[in-house]
Amino acid sequence: MVVLTRFQHLLLQPRLLSSHQSRVLRHPLIRTRTVIRSVMGSSSSSSSKLLFRQLFEKESSTYTYLLADVSHPDKPALTKVPGVKSVISKASGSKADMFLEPGDKVSIGDIYLEVRATPGHTAGCVTYVTGEEANQPQPRMAFTGDAVLIRGCGRTDFQGGSSDQLYESVHSQIFTLPKDTLIYPAHDYKGYEVSTVGEEMQHNPRLTKDKETFKSIMSNLNLAYPKMIDVAVPANMVCGLQDLPSQANL
Amino acid sequence: MVVLTRFQHLLLQPRLLSSHQSRVLRHPLIRTRTVIRSVMGSSSSSSSKLLFRQLFEKESSTYTYLLADVSHPDKPALTKVPGVKSVISKASGSKADMFLEPGDKVSIGDIYLEVRATPGHTAGCVTYVTGEEANQPQPRMAFTGDAVLIRGCGRTDFQGGSSDQLYESVHSQIFTLPKDTLIYPAHDYKGYEVSTVGEEMQHNPRLTKDKETFKSIMSNLNLAYPKMIDVAVPANMVCGLQDLPSQANL
Repeated sequence: MVVLTRFQHLLLQPRLLSSHQSRVLRHPLIRTRTVIRSVMGSSSSSSSKLLFRQLFEKESSTYTYLLADVSHPDKPALTKVPGVKSVISKASGSKADMFLEPGDKVSIGDIYLEVRATPGHTAGCVTYVTGEEANQPQPRMAFTGDAVLIRGCGRTDFQGGSSDQLYESVHSQIFTLPKDTLIYPAHDYKGYEVSTVGEEMQHNPRLTKDKETFKSIMSNLNLAYPKMIDVAVPANMVCGLQDLPSQANL
Repeated sequence: MVVLTRFQHLLLQPRLLSSHQSRVLRHPLIRTRTVIRSVMGSSSSSSSKLLFRQLFEKESSTYTYLLADVSHPDKPALTKVPGVKSVISKASGSKADMFLEPGDKVSIGDIYLEVRATPGHTAGCVTYVTGEEANQPQPRMAFTGDAVLIRGCGRTDFQGGSSDQLYESVHSQIFTLPKDTLIYPAHDYKGYEVSTVGEEMQHNPRLTKDKETFKSIMSNLNLAYPKMIDVAVPANMVCGLQDLPSQANL
């Protein structure tokens, strides 16, 4: 089982004990293993191998994703189980138990996610894409984090962001996927939940433009300072709120 | 194409002009046809016949659903197109262009929804269920309105509600569907988007109880008066805000 959090960390159910057993999970439901057990336990009757749930946290407009191979005999609950592992891209510079590089594969039973480097919002952003083989979920699914949002994209004006790099990332790593690939972002502010590569190639108001226009748009957004960033960034750079000095804990 | 609103009204794309061309659509995105066109126009490359989108309106925690048969040649936009028809259950006592009775079928191209009476939250509540034939979406989908919510159910303490009736409705009309039938409710307050019949039969904290316990739970909820009800109910009983006296318009 894998939980995908807003910062494209993965939480894996490993065999080994870990010093980083939990993380900043933005959805209150996955703070208790009871809920995950209930979702997992009840879905074994499904004919689909993939258990997929998108969970929404309203205050931060953040999506968290649950993916599991329910045909696999190992269907454990995750969040507070000893031995949970956190995984993040090596390029992020963040703390975690394991680090990923482009081209790496993360297995969830017989399903896997392939790691694509999509820097631009931050230097460490990655997109996880399900495999292309016939035994993998069809259509494919791309978890784009803050690279591609539905009809938008992540800001590029801080944390090592680069609009030039984001444009290249999206066009080379995401818009080259099959058009029916489902896009699941880390955030949404307008009530959208899912899009497709084809839709964003046709209708994304920023990423359909040529690169110079895109860069001009991104440098003129005049966005406010994110209200949660002073809590979120330090927590993301270690391995969650529990690893910060106690006065920073919520 | 069909838009399913929170009160289980349907909006159809008809051939006839109508005196009720729009309704209380809770999601701001479907107040303009531009958005619907963009969703519709871009999904023709999908291999699936069903275009399905769940849209969320945060202020009222309400879901609106778009369903379309994208293999059908007629892929029109809907909301502000002349001739849109509104449809509601006859038992609701509300105004609309067309009225449905249990067992009726509503066609969307080659896909259809079957109407099941599920009173209890109100006397007119229905659940729309996709067909069971192999050419219909699999697994089946049930749009349960306020009858079954994910890990909950609609309140039964006003508007002609009856906990006894709701219990019977759910157990006879929804929990008899295949366990992998997807449940899409009209509201969610906790970040859930979808469930299954099997999950709710196993984990719903109210509806898994025996009837007397359920009735006791429902009569002791001590819920506050809904903040939007003085606007929403009059608007639902006619055919949307535009049919109310002007002082009530938002």
